[in-house]
Amino acid sequence: MYRKEIKVLDCTIRDGGLMNRHQFSNDMVRRVFKACAASGVDYMEMGYKADENQFSRDEFGPMKFCSEKDIENVVDGAEKCCKISVMADIGRFDPNTILSKGESLVDMMRVASYVKDIDKAINLANKIKGKGYEVTINLMAVSHAREQDLDEALKQIEKESAVDVVYLVDSFGALYSEQIAYLAKKYKGILKTREIGIHAHNNQQLAFANTIEAIINNINFLDGTIFGIGRAAGNCPLELLLGFLKNPKFDLRPILEILEKDFVKLSQEIEWGYTIPYMLTGILDNHPRSAMALRNSENKDDYLNFYNKLINESNV
Amino acid sequence: MYRKEIKVLDCTIRDGGLMNRHQFSNDMVRRVFKACAASGVDYMEMGYKADENQFSRDEFGPMKFCSEKDIENVVDGAEKCCKISVMADIGRFDPNTILSKGESLVDMMRVASYVKDIDKAINLANKIKGKGYEVTINLMAVSHAREQDLDEALKQIEKESAVDVVYLVDSFGALYSEQIAYLAKKYKGILKTREIGIHAHNNQQLAFANTIEAIINNINFLDGTIFGIGRAAGNCPLELLLGFLKNPKFDLRPILEILEKDFVKLSQEIEWGYTIPYMLTGILDNHPRSAMALRNSENKDDYLNFYNKLINESNV
Repeated sequence: MYRKEIKVLDCTIRDGGLMNRHQFSNDMVRRVFKACAASGVDYMEMGYKADENQFSRDEFGPMKFCSEKDIENVVDGAEKCCKISVMADIGRFDPNTILSKGESLVDMMRVASYVKDIDKAINLANKIKGKGYEVTINLMAVSHAREQDLDEALKQIEKESAVDVVYLVDSFGALYSEQIAYLAKKYKGILKTREIGIHAHNNQQLAFANTIEAIINNINFLDGTIFGIGRAAGNCPLELLLGFLKNPKFDLRPILEILEKDFVKLSQEIEWGYTIPYMLTGILDNHPRSAMALRNSENKDDYLNFYNKLINESNV
Repeated sequence: MYRKEIKVLDCTIRDGGLMNRHQFSNDMVRRVFKACAASGVDYMEMGYKADENQFSRDEFGPMKFCSEKDIENVVDGAEKCCKISVMADIGRFDPNTILSKGESLVDMMRVASYVKDIDKAINLANKIKGKGYEVTINLMAVSHAREQDLDEALKQIEKESAVDVVYLVDSFGALYSEQIAYLAKKYKGILKTREIGIHAHNNQQLAFANTIEAIINNINFLDGTIFGIGRAAGNCPLELLLGFLKNPKFDLRPILEILEKDFVKLSQEIEWGYTIPYMLTGILDNHPRSAMALRNSENKDDYLNFYNKLINESNV
């Protein structure tokens, strides 16, 4: 598939950071940044904006905060061939602290929001846009949104916001390709003047397939992560995505190099990706938090009990 | 998805056996058989028919041979709620040794064939059908077949063979869902009086997605394996398939039980599933043998060199 409008966003460090409290060394983040740039990846998302009054640097690594200094420490003079993105969660940082784009290494901020918080998300996104950044709203957990509420939120974004891109986010890895196609058509139909993005989770080994389905349905902003790292079952593997896209600007080799140098080891240190508990929360369209708790417990492979518990809870 | 014609075939032990020379204990095979039966799986494929003059029992486990005695040892009085299948490779056993269906525990034999060997495959399949068995032809490596040759082979099967089911087999895990849809329509169009089956490999994490695409395109015989076990990147995970199918006869619980009791341990003993070398042979539409050799070597994570070597070979 080659379409010049397609942009690939790597969120290896941002979504992967949810599995290790963002405890990546600056060297590691820089290696990912350089690999993304060399591979032709358009954006690399490094982490979150977070308030140091709410979260402690003793507990979390620098990419939880993404201060200008934190990002400078990572880039450290490396050639900036790849745009830098950070995720901005509503209420977790003070928007008044955002620098003007001219003073920052950051190019894009992505506002993650549930459908119910759309007013706050639009307000924050417009503030960010006013500072000169590219901005997106990532509508999380769309599999849980009531259709009427989702329609209203999309209309409101189109009418009231200055965002460049709106992301379809399958937070629970619950959606099948037919549902992605249905939602992509809906987003494209309502958001006539915006680009659409896709962020898929791999609970049912469908993150890559659903990303392809999104591409077929004219979605142009594609999230991926190296070896699929990310919360719980993880994301669409970047190496599969680059292998699929036929745009000659993409080169798989720098990703293969960092895979063998860093990610074989990392995958032995922290767990992510398809496991049965994540599959079960995906099939049942549940938040993965119960499965993450199970995987961190002594009973991590008690699949049948876990399933029976989930089913009983959903029948209450 | 609920369609009463849908049949699920578990080939855990048959395709998984390619990763351990079929060295499963009879107890293990029996546990899989019982789990399949309890889950509502329609067929379980246990292994291959193989000639003891060609292959040694010192090297291979009983499910390489699947003599009547081997299968009796497995079933051992267990209730037979699930049909038994074996795979019959052309030239690897003597068709004259096949018992009449009335004397055998086997219900179905599947003839695996490349398009070029279709005459031999039809001949063998018709002999098997003559003995009273259900019979299939599994057209392997369809991603490598010339379209005209494939069309001819399908027409010939429809005209000359007595097979019940013809399988679309993505041996190299190279196909995307759009290509599965295209081929499924072709198979259905030519094989008007037969059922069609799908056997997918997971090199690009598309085995489940491609199986769903096949279902959407009216393919009714679906192969899966527990935890996706199978040669190289493995197959469509049975647990995902049963989670997707809405036919109330299927129950995920017995599969979850055997997953936790047997497959956690097995996955620590032998390797299968998505790894970067298998992804690379999948993307390049190559046989996985070079990737399997790499995974069995000291350089199993030398992804970049392996990729460069594959690319150089494909440019010769």
